[in-house]
Amino acid sequence: MALIVQKFGGTSVGSIERIRNVARRALATQRAGNDVVLIVSAMSGETNRLLGLAHEVTGVPDAREMDVIASTGEQISSALMALAIQNEGGQARSLLGHQVKILTDGAFTKARIKTIEGSKIFDTVRKGQIAVVAGFQGVNEHGDITTLGRGGSDTTGVAVAAAIGATACEIYTDVDGVYTTDPNICPSARKIDRISFEEMLELASLGAKVLQIRSVEIAMKYGVPIHVRSSFSEGEGTWVVKEDSALEDVVVAGVAYDKGEARVHIVGVEDKPGIVADLFGKIAEKNISVDMIIQSVTAGATERANVTFTVTKTDLVRAKPFIEEVAKGIGAREVRYDEDVVKVSIVGLGMRSHAGIAAKMFRILAGENINIQAISTSEIKVSCLIAAKYTELAVRTLHDAFGLGQKK
Amino acid sequence: MALIVQKFGGTSVGSIERIRNVARRALATQRAGNDVVLIVSAMSGETNRLLGLAHEVTGVPDAREMDVIASTGEQISSALMALAIQNEGGQARSLLGHQVKILTDGAFTKARIKTIEGSKIFDTVRKGQIAVVAGFQGVNEHGDITTLGRGGSDTTGVAVAAAIGATACEIYTDVDGVYTTDPNICPSARKIDRISFEEMLELASLGAKVLQIRSVEIAMKYGVPIHVRSSFSEGEGTWVVKEDSALEDVVVAGVAYDKGEARVHIVGVEDKPGIVADLFGKIAEKNISVDMIIQSVTAGATERANVTFTVTKTDLVRAKPFIEEVAKGIGAREVRYDEDVVKVSIVGLGMRSHAGIAAKMFRILAGENINIQAISTSEIKVSCLIAAKYTELAVRTLHDAFGLGQKK
Repeated sequence: MALIVQKFGGTSVGSIERIRNVARRALATQRAGNDVVLIVSAMSGETNRLLGLAHEVTGVPDAREMDVIASTGEQISSALMALAIQNEGGQARSLLGHQVKILTDGAFTKARIKTIEGSKIFDTVRKGQIAVVAGFQGVNEHGDITTLGRGGSDTTGVAVAAAIGATACEIYTDVDGVYTTDPNICPSARKIDRISFEEMLELASLGAKVLQIRSVEIAMKYGVPIHVRSSFSEGEGTWVVKEDSALEDVVVAGVAYDKGEARVHIVGVEDKPGIVADLFGKIAEKNISVDMIIQSVTAGATERANVTFTVTKTDLVRAKPFIEEVAKGIGAREVRYDEDVVKVSIVGLGMRSHAGIAAKMFRILAGENINIQAISTSEIKVSCLIAAKYTELAVRTLHDAFGLGQKK
Repeated sequence: MALIVQKFGGTSVGSIERIRNVARRALATQRAGNDVVLIVSAMSGETNRLLGLAHEVTGVPDAREMDVIASTGEQISSALMALAIQNEGGQARSLLGHQVKILTDGAFTKARIKTIEGSKIFDTVRKGQIAVVAGFQGVNEHGDITTLGRGGSDTTGVAVAAAIGATACEIYTDVDGVYTTDPNICPSARKIDRISFEEMLELASLGAKVLQIRSVEIAMKYGVPIHVRSSFSEGEGTWVVKEDSALEDVVVAGVAYDKGEARVHIVGVEDKPGIVADLFGKIAEKNISVDMIIQSVTAGATERANVTFTVTKTDLVRAKPFIEEVAKGIGAREVRYDEDVVKVSIVGLGMRSHAGIAAKMFRILAGENINIQAISTSEIKVSCLIAAKYTELAVRTLHDAFGLGQKK
């Protein structure tokens, strides 16, 4: 008998009829001889409706009260799910963050889980009931309600699975698994059967939206296998698992892209030791994350350098006045911004043992006359910043050139 | 400096604009030098919407899960209220049932408050914040969410006021106080300035809807003065207070009516000792409350008696088959039902010291040719069951004949 965690997102519980389908599916899993814990998101659209109410009252709502409001979405869907299971002849009860209890830090609207008590969940499944845990929510040490940020129910699912030692965490979604790249722009994109935590973490960080980054981090840390699959079909999806070596001779596992970053170009910085460190130190103090960084090489001490880096577009508005102030302070001549950029990345464990992958990527892009504006790499990924208009072309060309379109 | 509890019902927080009005009002009370605790209901219509969702899923929803869903209405309105107060420049925080904490018994959908911890509320007001407590909800000893039944926020208000030793509990509503009778059917109805707990309790029990019965019971037990007033005007409303003697020479304080009862008439019961006790014992076992009871007097042991009593119309459907079974068991010839009845009542502390009030009531009704079908009395009230078509006539005539229309 296995203990299985099944997490259903907002689309999967988006109507009463869909809630019934999930209830039947969970009961089928239970009747096959398993203990079942469900994690549910709010019905699709509900979180936005609730946050809209708060914004109607005040322009910059207090984060603590936002969480009190937002958490009701999952509170309602977990109770409706318990009712739907009962209506199908099963037994179930809803469990909220403060009931489980899911203890988080105090960072309202983006809290991180610290500990999860398993006893209420165990008590529930031991009675033959399905435990329906409200996703996305927890409580801080004072008992205030917190939420985990967008996609936080994935994190609840994996963290609960880790806490109770579940066999696996099934993440049900509206696609049937993790793809080698976005099928909407690349017709040869293929569902991946099995991928390592490390690769999934890079893909999620680089723009693949199928799993929340934090949930993959927790799964990797505690070794919880994740099964990403469709709530609308019975087929196997993608298993995200621990892999020490790349599978066979697959070098690149997937191609990701992210339009969320903007390029900042600071022209004519004094080329003195410490100036650039000073610049990024000051930006970091403002809690603005900088991603790709390039500093131009200069010919001598009298020449001025250029610095390019990227920040997320959502940070750019509040970052702009500050960046300009810092740039002025270090004697820069000018600051330019470009939001029409995309970061295209290839990810794969195989890069560790295969040389020349980055060079191959640059050649492929060059072959399409795509200019690379910035590069960043890690052990298992290479990212290139290019003009946004080349997004589809670059993704399709890289995907097929690295052999991702063919079945392994 | 006083500590004041202000409770606002669903109509008073029915829109964002109304929530803002309440926020301003609470802040004005605070700025006048008081500590303020708000109790809020769900926005009007919200509780019905939520219960509708549950009923869409299943015909007879589990009461525990109903409460999880229903309690979100107050959760949202309390947080919105805290945000509105902040938006007006004040400080506030929402407190839910499990945060306060409001401990209840385990009777889901109609729980009774056992204890309320004051510490979180005190911590909040001590910081200069307005504590916004979600009405209608609590938790049982296992931490499950419970609700207090319709109108339960009144009870939260009075119970919180008792627990923290508040100066008074102000109940804001859409009328400007308690009336001598329903102004919709009696134009000479007059707002009462001051009424005793006992009289208010009888009026609430006999059909006046302005306060939940349970809230008056708690106010009486703990001596918490209640001020019922309008959320749409500044005027004084009605004070519900401890009174040992009737005010001046007012004998009758108010006239109430209740169309919620149905008459059951059991014809031809054997007139043996114990038969009637047996009948009502069996009905009580089924948790059906019986109100007015009349047993006809018989001439001798061979004659058969008739028994008349009333039950609430909502109980009648499930009670009918059972009543007929019991009636058959005690040899009754026939059972008749009449739903076209109304219970009209006069209430007043002055009845304790004035004889002949009941007789005067009967004479007044007889004077209008209204037949009395059943009577019940207590120390401070007389109720008559009459045909429903006479409701308005009876109420108006009694109201004016007992001098309630004139200003004291």
